[in-house]
Amino acid sequence: MVILHNIRALSTSILITGTSQILTLRGAASRRGDALRDVGIIKDGALLLRDGLIAAVGRREKVEAHPLAREAEQLNVCGRVVLPGFVDSHTHLIHAASRSEEYELRISGASYEEIAQRGGGILNSVAKLRAATADTLKQRAQTALQQFAAYGTTTIEAKSGYGLDLTSELKILRLHKELAAERPLDIVSTFLGAHLIPAEFRNRPSGAKDYIALLTDTLIPEVAANKLAEYCDVFCERGAFNLAQSREILEAGKRNGLKPRMHAEQLSRTGATQLAIKLGAASCDHLEKINRADIRALAKSTTVATLLPGCDFHLGLSQYAPARALIDAGAIVGLATDYNPGTSPTVSMPMILSLACTQLRMTPADAIAAATINAAYSLGRHKLVGSLQVGKLADLAIFDVADYREIPYYFGMNACHTTIKRGKIIYSRN
Amino acid sequence: MVILHNIRALSTSILITGTSQILTLRGAASRRGDALRDVGIIKDGALLLRDGLIAAVGRREKVEAHPLAREAEQLNVCGRVVLPGFVDSHTHLIHAASRSEEYELRISGASYEEIAQRGGGILNSVAKLRAATADTLKQRAQTALQQFAAYGTTTIEAKSGYGLDLTSELKILRLHKELAAERPLDIVSTFLGAHLIPAEFRNRPSGAKDYIALLTDTLIPEVAANKLAEYCDVFCERGAFNLAQSREILEAGKRNGLKPRMHAEQLSRTGATQLAIKLGAASCDHLEKINRADIRALAKSTTVATLLPGCDFHLGLSQYAPARALIDAGAIVGLATDYNPGTSPTVSMPMILSLACTQLRMTPADAIAAATINAAYSLGRHKLVGSLQVGKLADLAIFDVADYREIPYYFGMNACHTTIKRGKIIYSRN
Repeated sequence: MVILHNIRALSTSILITGTSQILTLRGAASRRGDALRDVGIIKDGALLLRDGLIAAVGRREKVEAHPLAREAEQLNVCGRVVLPGFVDSHTHLIHAASRSEEYELRISGASYEEIAQRGGGILNSVAKLRAATADTLKQRAQTALQQFAAYGTTTIEAKSGYGLDLTSELKILRLHKELAAERPLDIVSTFLGAHLIPAEFRNRPSGAKDYIALLTDTLIPEVAANKLAEYCDVFCERGAFNLAQSREILEAGKRNGLKPRMHAEQLSRTGATQLAIKLGAASCDHLEKINRADIRALAKSTTVATLLPGCDFHLGLSQYAPARALIDAGAIVGLATDYNPGTSPTVSMPMILSLACTQLRMTPADAIAAATINAAYSLGRHKLVGSLQVGKLADLAIFDVADYREIPYYFGMNACHTTIKRGKIIYSRN
Repeated sequence: MVILHNIRALSTSILITGTSQILTLRGAASRRGDALRDVGIIKDGALLLRDGLIAAVGRREKVEAHPLAREAEQLNVCGRVVLPGFVDSHTHLIHAASRSEEYELRISGASYEEIAQRGGGILNSVAKLRAATADTLKQRAQTALQQFAAYGTTTIEAKSGYGLDLTSELKILRLHKELAAERPLDIVSTFLGAHLIPAEFRNRPSGAKDYIALLTDTLIPEVAANKLAEYCDVFCERGAFNLAQSREILEAGKRNGLKPRMHAEQLSRTGATQLAIKLGAASCDHLEKINRADIRALAKSTTVATLLPGCDFHLGLSQYAPARALIDAGAIVGLATDYNPGTSPTVSMPMILSLACTQLRMTPADAIAAATINAAYSLGRHKLVGSLQVGKLADLAIFDVADYREIPYYFGMNACHTTIKRGKIIYSRN
C-alpha cells in the first residue's frame, strides 16, 4: 500500500514486473491476420513507464537493462495480466438519471419503440437533462468516469444528444471539455444533436426540416467554432433521421471540420452503413441489421464496424451484429459499451468482452483487439493509445487473472485490479 | 471509515438508517401473488441488528423507538437500498482451476458435449481436483467466498462432484464443513457423486452399474455417517445418469437421510423433473427443456424450480428456461449462479438478476424474490434467512442504488456497497 501511495505521489518512472502476460496489441488497427489473431503476448515481461509514456516494453531482462530502469519505482503485479487500457469508443456519458422504470415496463412486454412513443425513451432523458444543472450532470459524470476507470477503461468517446437545443447541447459539450481537462480519463467529444427530433419540433408540419436547419446552420457551426467536438454523429433509424437527412447533417459537420460517425442499422436496415463509408466516416456503430453487401463494403473501407452488444443484451433482443462475418471478411471491428440510460446502462468493458465472446462468437483475442487498438483507430487515437508500444501513452489495465482469456470468461465480475492513465494509478483495488 | 471499523471490532448492536428502500421480502417462499409481486418495500425505513439477528425492522421512527436502539452503533447508509443477503442455492464451490481454454474452443465452434467427449468438461475438472491438495483447493474456495460476499451473497449451497471417488469426494465435502465452520458465509453441503461416471469406470462393460453401486453402497453411507452433506444431487442427463439410475441414487440418499435435489432437463428432456417431484426433492435445477406437464407438476409441488441462466449465457445457448410460464403457473422459482469452471464461471448474483430480467423476462421483484426467500426455501433455510424479519439472521446486502430495480438494470457492474453476515460487516467498498 505504501508503495502504491508513493507512486501516486512522487514517481515519474515506474517499472512494472511480475506479469504473467503482457498483451501488447502491437501494430495499427488490424484486420484478420495480424493483431486480431495475435494480441502480441509477452510472458514474464516488464514495462517501463516514464513521464506518462511507455519507455520500454518486452522481456523482463531487456527492460530491466534499460538505463532508466534502475531509478524507477517497482510495481510487482504478482502474476497478473497487463494490457492496454480499454478505449470505449461509443458512450453517452452525460445524462441526468437512470431509466430503470422503463426497464421494468419493457420486461413486462412494451417494446423500446412503444415506450419512446409514450414519451419515454430518449425524449425522457432529454426532458431530464434540460432540467438538470451543469453541476448535477458533472457530478454524475465524474462518478461514471471513476467507474469506467475501475473496469479498466482509460479513454472514452462521449456524445451529446440529450440536449437537442442550443443551450442544452452546449451544456453537455462544455462538460466534455471540462471533464477532459480535469482528467483522469481522456475524453473524445462527439456532437450528436441528430439523436432525435425534439418534442417541440414534432408537432409542426415542417418540424424535421426546421430542426435539421437548426443543426446545420446554428448548432454545428457553433460547436465547431468553440472546438467543442471532433466528431458529428447521426442516429439514422426509423423514427429518428432518414438517409437523406443523415447525409445533410453529416455533410454540414464535415464542412465545419467535424468528422462523421454514424448510428447505423440497429433496429432496421436504412443504408446508413454505405452512406457512412461514402462520407469517409470514422465508425459505423451497431450494425445488427447489416446485409452481405454492407459487410463487403466495410471490409474494403477504413470505417470501423463498432459493435455494441450491451444494447442487444439489455433490450433482450436475440439478434446480435454478425461479428464473425465482419472479421472473416476483413472489416476492422470495434467494441464499445454504448453506456447510456435507455439501452445499455453499463460502463463495464469486461462485460462487453463477455458478450462479444459468448454471444457474438468473437475469440477473446478478437474482442480485446476490438476494445483497444481498433477502438483507438476509430477515434483517430491509434498512434497515442490502444497498444503497449514505446512512445505511446502509459495507459494500462492490470487484471487479476493468470491468462487474458479469463477476462471475458469470468462474466459479470470485474477482475480489474489496477488502472494506470498517463503513468498514474487512477484505480487500485485494495 | 472509523465508524465501519468500530462496528467490525466492537458492536453487537447496529442501527441502520438513511435507507432509500428496505426490501423485506416478508413471507415464506412465495408463489405468484404474494412476495413475487411485492418485495415488501419500506421507504425511509430502519433496521436494528443485535447479536447477529434482526431485532427490529420497519419505519424509521418505530425502529428508533426500540429500547435497544439507543445503545446501538449507527450505520447511515446514505440513501442506499437494503435487501436480504442473496442465497445462492446452486454452486460447485470447490474446484481446482478455470477452464478458459475450453471456453475459447467452444467459441470456435466445439459444443459442450464434444469437448466433454475429448476428455474436457467435467472430467477435466475431476483430473485436476484429484491432483490438487486440500490446501490449494481451500485457498481457491476462500478467495471465491470473499468474492461471493463482495456481490451481496451471504449463504451458498456447495456441491461436491469433481472428485468421483471416495477420497476425493470426501476431500471436497470436508472442505465444505471446514469453510462453513470458519465462516463468514453459511454453506449448505450437497453430495453430487452422481455428477458423471468417472473415467476409470467408463471402459468397463458394467462401469455404470459398478459406479452406481459404489455411490449407493459406499459413498452415500460414508457421507451420511460423517454428516458431510444435507442433500444428495444427481446430474440426470444424456451422457450422465438416466432416469432409473437417478432414482436409484436419490433413493439411496433418502434412506441415508440425504434429501434429494436434481439437475433436470438442461440439455434434453429426460423426465427428471417429474421424478424429482415424486421423490419430494427440494429443488429441480436448470429446466431449459421442460414441457407444459412439467410446469404444471412443479406448480402443484413444493419443489423449487431453480433456474441457472448464467449457464445458458456462458455456453451461448439461445434457449433459457421458461421463467414466466413457471411463475404464471404458480411454481416457486429460484435463481442461482451455478458457479462452476465449465459452464458458469461467475459468483455474481447481480449478474444473474440481470440475465433473469433481460433474458428470462422476470421482473426485478420476481428475480430478487427468487434469489433470496425462494432460494432459502429450496435449502430449508427460509426460517433463518432470505427475508428481513425479526428473529431471522442479520444477513444483509446494501446496494449503492436509489431503487432496487437498478440492481439488475446496471448490468455487468457490481453496485454492492456493504455485505453484513450475522450482524458483521464482511464486505465494504471503500
